[in-house]
Amino acid sequence: MLVNLLDVIGAFVFALSGGARAVEHKMDAFGVVFLAFVASVAGGVLRDVLIGATPPAAIASWRYLAIASLAAVACFFCYRQIQRLSAPVAAFDAIGLGLFAVVGARKALDAGLTPLMAAVLGMLTAIGGGIARDILTTRTPMVLHREIYALAAFAGAGLVAFGDSAGVPDEITAPMGAILATALRLLALNLNWQFPSAKSD
Amino acid sequence: MLVNLLDVIGAFVFALSGGARAVEHKMDAFGVVFLAFVASVAGGVLRDVLIGATPPAAIASWRYLAIASLAAVACFFCYRQIQRLSAPVAAFDAIGLGLFAVVGARKALDAGLTPLMAAVLGMLTAIGGGIARDILTTRTPMVLHREIYALAAFAGAGLVAFGDSAGVPDEITAPMGAILATALRLLALNLNWQFPSAKSD
Amino acid sequence: MLVNLLDVIGAFVFALSGGARAVEHKMDAFGVVFLAFVASVAGGVLRDVLIGATPPAAIASWRYLAIASLAAVACFFCYRQIQRLSAPVAAFDAIGLGLFAVVGARKALDAGLTPLMAAVLGMLTAIGGGIARDILTTRTPMVLHREIYALAAFAGAGLVAFGDSAGVPDEITAPMGAILATALRLLALNLNWQFPSAKSD
Repeated sequence: MLVNLLDVIGAFVFALSGGARAVEHKMDAFGVVFLAFVASVAGGVLRDVLIGATPPAAIASWRYLAIASLAAVACFFCYRQIQRLSAPVAAFDAIGLGLFAVVGARKALDAGLTPLMAAVLGMLTAIGGGIARDILTTRTPMVLHREIYALAAFAGAGLVAFGDSAGVPDEITAPMGAILATALRLLALNLNWQFPSAKSD
Repeated sequence: MLVNLLDVIGAFVFALSGGARAVEHKMDAFGVVFLAFVASVAGGVLRDVLIGATPPAAIASWRYLAIASLAAVACFFCYRQIQRLSAPVAAFDAIGLGLFAVVGARKALDAGLTPLMAAVLGMLTAIGGGIARDILTTRTPMVLHREIYALAAFAGAGLVAFGDSAGVPDEITAPMGAILATALRLLALNLNWQFPSAKSD
Repeated sequence: MLVNLLDVIGAFVFALSGGARAVEHKMDAFGVVFLAFVASVAGGVLRDVLIGATPPAAIASWRYLAIASLAAVACFFCYRQIQRLSAPVAAFDAIGLGLFAVVGARKALDAGLTPLMAAVLGMLTAIGGGIARDILTTRTPMVLHREIYALAAFAGAGLVAFGDSAGVPDEITAPMGAILATALRLLALNLNWQFPSAKSD
């Protein structure tokens, strides 16, 4: 129940990030829905295709399309208000990141992956939507440039994956993993933590 | 028979769109073949991967590669003439859009998807090639910006998908869906119909 | 044994190409690892997804992630030295190209593809990582613009694929194919061979 609710919130917030980008690019109504949908589901679709779970959940059910459409409508008609909400959106986004990381790691474990690679897939689930959104709007994916984002997802997903191999039940690791990823992300955002950048000169 | 012929025409015209783009970018001969092939098959490959029908038709058979190579040769040696043909090409492109939407929806239904999501997959089949072509040449995908294109594909695919669940045989809905999508696209193009764009200021 | 060693070298060199690009773009440490990993495995992942061999080898085993991480560390801390190594890197890259082409063609044949399409998949295996690396950093994929690169991979993969259908054992065609692709690539690079470009004016 709670997980389902958080899943819906996560999908909705990632859809908002796609829809808001589409509005910035002055796309038409279809473009707004499309980019909201892609940002919302691309990570999960990538995960499902990689583990052979076809059709992916986002294609098998109408739920994600409905969520994305709702987010697109919100972006289309209330862009200014959403921009003003950027702090809450970033918080929801961090929650979505944590949840998608945990769900992704769980599904990867169920598909028989090792803990390390399940953590990698959980991370990909959490960051895939943002990467697709950035590529479709011809930007270098934000996740490659900024702050501790993917690493937070990796930590949360890893907690579930390695907890599983240590025999700790999901009921404990899933919420802890989601909270860990979300907290790391929010702390990094607010304290402006940054990974060191490579020096090319 | 007719469907096969139209399928070949559709694949050829989408390949032309990729090949022409490659020539614009002054790519070498391989680049022209490659971009023609990708523009021609990416939508169908995406559909087949998502429904688990591997290897995709475009990989299992040499037919699509041959069609793309033919289109590439045409683009390489007769670029000026093809540019002059742009109105007929747009008409063929609309035909390809309609056919790929219908074929995609049918395959998605056969894979057990719900009508709504089958319509979505039909649309993706029709627009996927153009998206891949645009990303490979680092443009924001045209379909996100312009005119009623994806929506026309969605309408045609939806007619097949929902007709199926209403018990109407494919022999009726498939041609109707292809004609509907093609007609919508051509009307939008000629009457300069546009979806409203979101306002970001 | 030898093939395994060459596979590791190929994966490592492709990872270097991704990591070096990430450093050029001043990405953070995570970005360097991520781009190294993607450049190293994207071709093989694409191949495995297209032939339905899920989860792909790069996801099923930790080996490729470890190789990419090692390459990323090298890029992060020794960027100048790696830049100075560019000639040897190009040679290793050509070796990686040859090997990935051969391995890709073999796996595609095992999945039941025809020789022609197995050669195409072998080529995609060899060039996929570079394409993903270029798209993620919003460049038009180098392979579409430059020199005889994909064609060399196609020749090597084709030798394995058509040799197989002629009954020649892999023990002969695999090394020959890898050497052919590598040699073609190195010759093209050193003699500045180029495919003719299309004329758009």
